[in-house]
Parts: sequence; C-alpha cells; structure tokens
Amino acid sequence: MIPSIEWVNNKVKMIDQTILPRELKFLEFDNYRDVATSIKVMNIRGAPAIGVAAAMGMALATIEYKELPKEPFLKKMEEAAEVIRKTRPTASNLFWAVDRIWKIISKYPDNPSNISELVIEEAKLMAQEDINVNKNIGKNGAALLDDGDVVLTHCNAGSLATVQYGTALAPVRAAIEGGKKISVIADETRPRLQGARLTAYELQYDKIPVKVISDTSSGLIMRLGKINKVIVGTDRVTSDAVFNKIGTYLVALAAKDNNIPFYVAAPTSTLSLQETVDDVTIEQRDSKEVSCVLNEVQIVPDGVDCLNYAFDITPFRLVTGVITEDGVFSHDELLKKYK
Amino acid sequence: MIPSIEWVNNKVKMIDQTILPRELKFLEFDNYRDVATSIKVMNIRGAPAIGVAAAMGMALATIEYKELPKEPFLKKMEEAAEVIRKTRPTASNLFWAVDRIWKIISKYPDNPSNISELVIEEAKLMAQEDINVNKNIGKNGAALLDDGDVVLTHCNAGSLATVQYGTALAPVRAAIEGGKKISVIADETRPRLQGARLTAYELQYDKIPVKVISDTSSGLIMRLGKINKVIVGTDRVTSDAVFNKIGTYLVALAAKDNNIPFYVAAPTSTLSLQETVDDVTIEQRDSKEVSCVLNEVQIVPDGVDCLNYAFDITPFRLVTGVITEDGVFSHDELLKKYK
Repeated sequence: MIPSIEWVNNKVKMIDQTILPRELKFLEFDNYRDVATSIKVMNIRGAPAIGVAAAMGMALATIEYKELPKEPFLKKMEEAAEVIRKTRPTASNLFWAVDRIWKIISKYPDNPSNISELVIEEAKLMAQEDINVNKNIGKNGAALLDDGDVVLTHCNAGSLATVQYGTALAPVRAAIEGGKKISVIADETRPRLQGARLTAYELQYDKIPVKVISDTSSGLIMRLGKINKVIVGTDRVTSDAVFNKIGTYLVALAAKDNNIPFYVAAPTSTLSLQETVDDVTIEQRDSKEVSCVLNEVQIVPDGVDCLNYAFDITPFRLVTGVITEDGVFSHDELLKKYK
Repeated sequence: MIPSIEWVNNKVKMIDQTILPRELKFLEFDNYRDVATSIKVMNIRGAPAIGVAAAMGMALATIEYKELPKEPFLKKMEEAAEVIRKTRPTASNLFWAVDRIWKIISKYPDNPSNISELVIEEAKLMAQEDINVNKNIGKNGAALLDDGDVVLTHCNAGSLATVQYGTALAPVRAAIEGGKKISVIADETRPRLQGARLTAYELQYDKIPVKVISDTSSGLIMRLGKINKVIVGTDRVTSDAVFNKIGTYLVALAAKDNNIPFYVAAPTSTLSLQETVDDVTIEQRDSKEVSCVLNEVQIVPDGVDCLNYAFDITPFRLVTGVITEDGVFSHDELLKKYK
C-alpha cells in the first residue's frame, strides 16, 4: 500500500491516479489552485482522499497568504475555500474538510502565521485520522466476511480512494490479515474505470486475489453464485439514500434480487443525515468521458451526445448495513446513532 | 438503412461491424469458413443477422461441394453445418437457420447441384423474410409507444443486428414513420460497445435522435424520469427467461424498480420455448475484450484476469411483454401460442 496523498516539506504529494495502472507517477503541488485542479480532473479521487486533499489545499493557501494582515488573509482564505468546494459538488467530505479547517481559522483570527502552522497540523492529523478510521471500518467489516467469501465491489473505495487502507476494501484487508481467505471481483466502473484500473491495481499490488468484470456482468455473476457479499464505498449518506459512483444502484438491485448482502463502508465524515435525496446535486461530467474511453478511443459517433452523471442514488431499502468506524448499523440504527 | 448482409453474385457481402462507427467498410466472402469466422469475431452480430449469415454460409458450402457425389457432399455439408453451429453457442437463430437449410438438403438428397440452387434461394428468402418479420415487429411494437416517448435500449438490436430494420429498434422506426416523436437512449453495452458504436451509428444515420449512456447509468436515468419504455432484443427465449446481451438483467431490474415497461422484441426464430434456462450454455469470451477496450486501450493491469460472459439471463417476472411478428404477448400468452 502506497499512501495516495502525503504532506511532504510543505508540499502536497499525490499519486496521479489518471494514468494508473499503466504508470505509477507522483505529483507535487505547492499551491491550492493546483490541488483544486487535481481534485477536479481526478488525479486524486475517492471521498476520503479528496477530503484530505481539500484540507491540505487549505493548508497550502495559509502558507501562501500568512504574511497578509488579518482581513485580507481571511478574504483570500474564503476565496480558496470556495475554489476547493466547487471542484466536485457531490462529495460531502470536501465540505466537511473545508469546514473543519475553517473552524481552526475562525478560532485564531489574529495571527495568520500562527493559523498556518495550526492548519498544517490539522491537515496532517486528518490524514492520520483517515487511516485510523479505515482500520476500524476494516475491523468492523471483517466480522461480516466468512472464510472463502468472494466480495464484489464497485468503483474504487480502496487505499487509493483514501489516504491509505481504504473503506470498502478495508474489511477485505482486515479479514485477510485475520487469516481468512477472501477474493474480490471488481466492476470495471465506466466511464472512468476506477474498478478496472485502480481496484485491480491496488489489490494486485498487495497480492489480494482480484478479477475484473464489465459493469454489465454483475447481475449474471450473482445469479451464477459467484458472489457472497457486496461492499461499496460512499461519497455521501443522506437520511434516505446512499450516494456513490454511478452504477451502484444497479449492483444493489441485483444483490437484493439474489439475496446477497449489500454493505456500504462509510466513514462518519461521509454521513450527512440531516439531508435527503432532494438536497443533493448530482455532478454531471463531460460527455467525452463516455464517448472517448480514457480520452484515447472514441466509441461513439461524432455528433452523438452522451449523458454523464457521476453518482448514483441507492435507496436504503436495498442496503443491508452501513459499516462505519464505530460499528455496523442498519438504516434505523444509523439514524438513531448519528442523526 | 444499409443492409447488414446481402447475397451478391454468389458471394456474401456484409458490413464489418467491428470497425463502426469509425469506418463503413464491406467484406465479401466466397466460402463458408470465412463466414463462420466473421460470425465468431463479430464482423456480423445480432441473432437475426447471424441466422441469415449462417444460411448464406451453408449456401456457399453447397456451391463449393456441388460437384461431389451425394455421400461425400452430405459429409462435407455436415462438416460445414458443424463449423457454423459452433461459432456462437447462445444464439438460437444459428441453429434455427442451419436446421432450416438442412431440411432443404434432406428433401433433395440425389442432386447436389440442384440442392445448391434451392439452398441459395432459401437463404435469400430468409433474408427477405427477416425484413418482413422486423416490419411486423415494428408495427406491433409501435402501438406500445406514445408520442414523445424516450426509449432505452441495450446493445444493438437494430438494423445492423438483422438484415435490415431491426427488432428492438423496429417499433421506434415504425412509430416515427407513423408520425410520433420518439427518441432513444442507448446503453453503451460493454465490453463490445454495440450500443455506443452501432445503435448510435445507425440511428444517427437515419436521423433518429439518440444519446448514449454508460451501462452504469440506466438506473439513475430511470429514477430521474428520463425513460418511458425499455425495448431490447433477444438471442434466445426459453420458457422461463430471455437470453440477451450481458447487462440486460440489470436494465430489467431497474425498469421494474421504477415501474417502466420492459419489452423484448423477439422474432419467432428466437423462440426456443421447449427449453429452460438450464438447457442453455452461456458463451464465455476472451478476457481481453474486457481488459483492452476495442483491442486498443488496456484498462486492467497485466496479470489480472477478467470474467467475460456474453449473455444475460432475464427472468420473465421482469418482462412486461414480448413483441413478435404476430403481436405483443405476456409470458402466459407467449407460452400458450408458441409452445
């Protein structure tokens, strides 16, 4: 496991996930604008990872503006927060992370230089907390897995979607560390192919057995008895639904129809239980992500438009349980504990 | 509309569908082995089209062997039938077409040269019948569509999947010819992308409005109210299920969950109602179709295997109606009429 993002010598270092699995390359940024762009173009992606990236982006902004007097500093920081918040509208971690950094800023309004040091420490702490949260999700989720299980996952909610260890893949890692034999089937996850590219890459890297299927195959594979459990990540959990990568709803429907448990691994930073489905904007991305695979092979005739919604809505009636760092919860239990 | 396959001067002429939409190129074959290969590598695909290709392949074999005496002729024809039948194991039209040609051969066993002429006529008749059948499917299905409907389809069961006019797209064509305003949303249909490449191509060619979505999007698109009807084709209908391109079952589940009618356009040549799910072998194709998009862009790390089942099983409980050349039937009505 390689950390997907790190704070190194007052720079943000991250894996460029757009070119995996063909090349493992690192990017380094010394300003928040480049970090915001890296979130937008998905050099880094995955709700927990972009939360930490947002916090580190804010930390870079404090370094850039720390010589300013209080008022201009706050104004510039507000601009930075706005740019970062606007990169991906659906992930709640982005807002959560910016808000958390903003609390530090508001508490110490008189000395930007002092604030900068505290914000940097907070961003580094959030990265470490992410790993701790994921390890606990792993421990809680591993108890749901039986020796020999084949787990289907959609998109990448693995180490690469977090700082390290993953959310949806954390139970798989923890179960294997605990001596169980577990293998994974990864949906390729069109249009950006995070399953084929990233989930397959990180599991192979860590010697965890993995096979890839087209997104069209999950229903049949379940019917044929090749899947025991489904675990997916999430970008935002509202009181009535789970928002996750487009295609998740179809996987959940197939799991229900085949009596296969469908779990959502959700760090509490993704919980937004005061909201409902109607409060969430689903990000629509460029038609070209669909029409031209990885910006390399055109698959749709010129002049034909594509619809490209990035996230799916999975109603709670299709969800067996939500795995957080605190435990595994039914819908009712989740609302009772966290709302 | 361009015919996908034709009998021209004792040769088989077909569109090379593997390179659409980038290039419109025609292939010509003068022997059944090349036709069998063209079915196998999917230069031609779609159950009705490969049925006609199989018949024309048999016709080419009769030309090749018509100078032989009766016994060697029959032996060679049996070999040809076997090669053609083995190209794609799931499509029942392949077996139906070879059987139909074989009936001609068995009726006139004494003069291979005479047989050859009759088989050629039969193959040409089957091509014309296909068009007639599709027009009737169109007429019957058009009555199900309302002015302004948006129809979701999976894979390509259009003109390119038949000799001409299509099965699943026939109701769309007929409704538009009848003055209704209809548009189509096409699932891209991984791994071979027949929806993105072929459905989009032929509809654009015929000026029918079409948009493409990733296979992961159909559930959300339905939830957002953007789809009124689903129509898909089929490769084989057994007494208990519809076999069609991988991914069809997921679309059917989503349609059911969103109360959207799900229709199957099935020429009677695809009906195999004496069979059940257990009788059908689902074709598994090369892992590389998944791992390397259109054999051009590798999306899965080296050394990671992919599962690649070509067809899906959709149980009849998810099917609103079956559109044949004779009418529109519920499951019970279908069994009553055809079994």
